[in-house]
Parts: sequence; structure tokens; C-alpha cells
Amino acid sequence: MGDLTLFTFDWVPKLPRGFVRDIRVRWALEESGLPYRVESVPFHDRKAEHFAHQPFGQVPWLTDGDLSIFESGAILLHLGELSDALLPAEPRHRSEAKEWLFAALNSVEMASLPWGLLKMSDSADETPAWKFLDGFLTLRLKRMEPVLAEREWLAGTFSIADILMADALRLVDRFDGLADYPACRAYVARATSRPFFVKAHADQMAHFAAAD
Amino acid sequence: MGDLTLFTFDWVPKLPRGFVRDIRVRWALEESGLPYRVESVPFHDRKAEHFAHQPFGQVPWLTDGDLSIFESGAILLHLGELSDALLPAEPRHRSEAKEWLFAALNSVEMASLPWGLLKMSDSADETPAWKFLDGFLTLRLKRMEPVLAEREWLAGTFSIADILMADALRLVDRFDGLADYPACRAYVARATSRPFFVKAHADQMAHFAAAD
Repeated sequence: MGDLTLFTFDWVPKLPRGFVRDIRVRWALEESGLPYRVESVPFHDRKAEHFAHQPFGQVPWLTDGDLSIFESGAILLHLGELSDALLPAEPRHRSEAKEWLFAALNSVEMASLPWGLLKMSDSADETPAWKFLDGFLTLRLKRMEPVLAEREWLAGTFSIADILMADALRLVDRFDGLADYPACRAYVARATSRPFFVKAHADQMAHFAAAD
Repeated sequence: MGDLTLFTFDWVPKLPRGFVRDIRVRWALEESGLPYRVESVPFHDRKAEHFAHQPFGQVPWLTDGDLSIFESGAILLHLGELSDALLPAEPRHRSEAKEWLFAALNSVEMASLPWGLLKMSDSADETPAWKFLDGFLTLRLKRMEPVLAEREWLAGTFSIADILMADALRLVDRFDGLADYPACRAYVARATSRPFFVKAHADQMAHFAAAD
């Protein structure tokens, strides 16, 4: 293992603060106890070097020695392989954590992020496109509700799957989309009351505030 | 390694045929040369046992001996660990394949699937919600275009990342959304002309046609 460095923007507008995806990596790193540094790249003037590390011009990316990794899911999987606190060693739970990690990103967040961004931009309306997105999210929440009603964490013990699922669902909660899903809401509350999330969130808020 | 069995629906309507996600698993299995069987579950009357294997009531899932795995990304990662034909052994390319696998699912498909489903349901219109989704996809395609212009496959050699990325992009191509992105379109053509894709696609079409 090399020297872990998390790259994020130097500044972002107020609206997305607390939800910028570096929080997933901060949270995982705090849970793991692995030492890390944070470096900033310009939000306003994104250089070719930024795109070389993150082809979509977004954040975060992580370097581990010579290795540079983008995509929060890929970064968390990499960190999971470095720490049993993030990915259970027991084979069945490990496999479950991985499938739920993908479910968080590709089944739940595929619905929740477009929904949340439209809410954030005040573009939620009565059109077919919005209704489709709202219905898509409802389908997912209806299935997550019984899953989360019967377990504390997705894969037997807290894991990177919970970091991604809770982060996807708390964006819905921000716009009061979990009112009809008490188990989902309780899960978000349970995950975000973990001291390591609280620290990661405070660190992100402080990081961006320092550049105001 | 146990006995690999892919579970898919017994039947689906004509519109999604050729695009049901079991094709990702069929394609990967064909590329790997690993032996497998296909089993069907009811499309119309989904049982509790179905939800026990796939909590969203969708397909596919894969069993490998006693292990049952849902989410096409998780299944492909599992198969990648069984076959160098799916996930390069060289550490840097292996890491790249994993980050692009997540990019396909969480950066590209998060935009392309809602876009494609709205196109499929004829709900693409001039509303803010549709324009948001169309703009979201455009952002991603503009960044994928230079990436795909300079390389044949995403991670040095063909991998599961290409299966997921090509599958996400061919849904866009189906509705002529790649007209302004020649490198993306050429990549889809390159990927889908592989004999293992052709076989996987023909097998899926035949599977559902057999139940008509």
C-alpha cells in the first residue's frame, strides 16, 4: 500500500456542499483508519491533468502510490480490499457487500441522483419525463423498504455498500422523498449518525468553506 | 468454482428484447469460455423466491455453486475474477478495467438508461425534466468521445468494462443518440461485432421467442 491521497475540488457552490462525492471516500477512509491526505484541484478551470485522472472532469479521485483511481465505487472497492472494516472477510458477506455496492450505484442511485438533481434545480414538474423519474425512484424505494426493515446493515455488518446506499438515499431524504419509507429513513439516520460520517461531513463542509 | 447458472425471465415483451440485462452475463460467459446453464423464472408472476435472489424483482442473477449473486456489475466482477479473458491480470490494467466498469454503470448508464427508457416509452419532450436528462447524457458522451477516439478498448485489452460500456451506449445508439459521436458509435459497432456478443444476442432473442 502506498500513500493515500484524495483529490477534490478547491471550492463548490453552496447547494451541493455536504453531497459532493468525495464524502464517500472521506467516510470510508475514516471508517478504515487508514492515513490519508486531501488535495484540491480547481473547480472553475479544470486542466488537462484533471481529465487525465478523471475523464469526466469530476471529483473525487484517489491516488495510492503510483495508482490513480476514479469513480467513487471503484475507489471504495479498492479501499475495501485494504481494510476488513470496509469489506467483511467472510466470503458470503463479502460477496453480499459487493452486490449491494453495485445495487446502490446502478439500481438505486440511477434513479435517485437524476431525481435529486431535478429537485435541486427546481425542475420537478408534472411532465411525463418527471413522472417517469419519480415512478422509477418509487419502484426502487418500495423494494428497499422491506430489505432495510429486516436488517441493520446490508451485508451482515457495516460495509462500503452501506456508505454508497446511505449516501444515495440521504439525497432523497434531503428533499423529503423518504416520508413514506420509514425503514429507509431510519437507515439513513443510523448511517449518518456514525461518528465517521459526521467527521467526513464536517471535513467536507470546512474544506469548501475555507475557500469562500 | 461451482456450477454456473444464469437466471432470466421466461418471457419479456418484444420492445426490450435484445436489451434485457442477462445479455451482459451471457456475453461475459461466452467470452470466458466458462460452461454455464440458463434457467427461467416467470415474468408475470414473480414469487418470493425470485425476490430472495434479486431484491428488485428483476433479472439476471447468477448462481455459482452455493453462491447467488445479483446486479450485472457484481456478476461480471465475479466472473472477471474467474477468467483473465474478462479482467486483465496485469495490475494497472486490472485496476483500469474496474474503474471503467464503475464508470459504465454509475457515470454513463445513470444518464443513458433513463434517457433510453423515456425514448422507449415515447416520453421524450421539451420539458425541463427531459432536457435535463438529455443534457446529462450529452455531458457524458462529450467526455467518452475523446476517450474512445484514442483506444480500442477501455483498459488496454477487451474486458468486462467494455461489455458494460458498450451495452450502455448501444441503447443510446438504438435511438440514434450517437450521431454526433462517431468514436462512440464505432466502439459500439466494434464491440457488438464480436462473435461472443453476436451469439449472446441471438441466444437471448431465441430464449424469449421460444415462449411466444
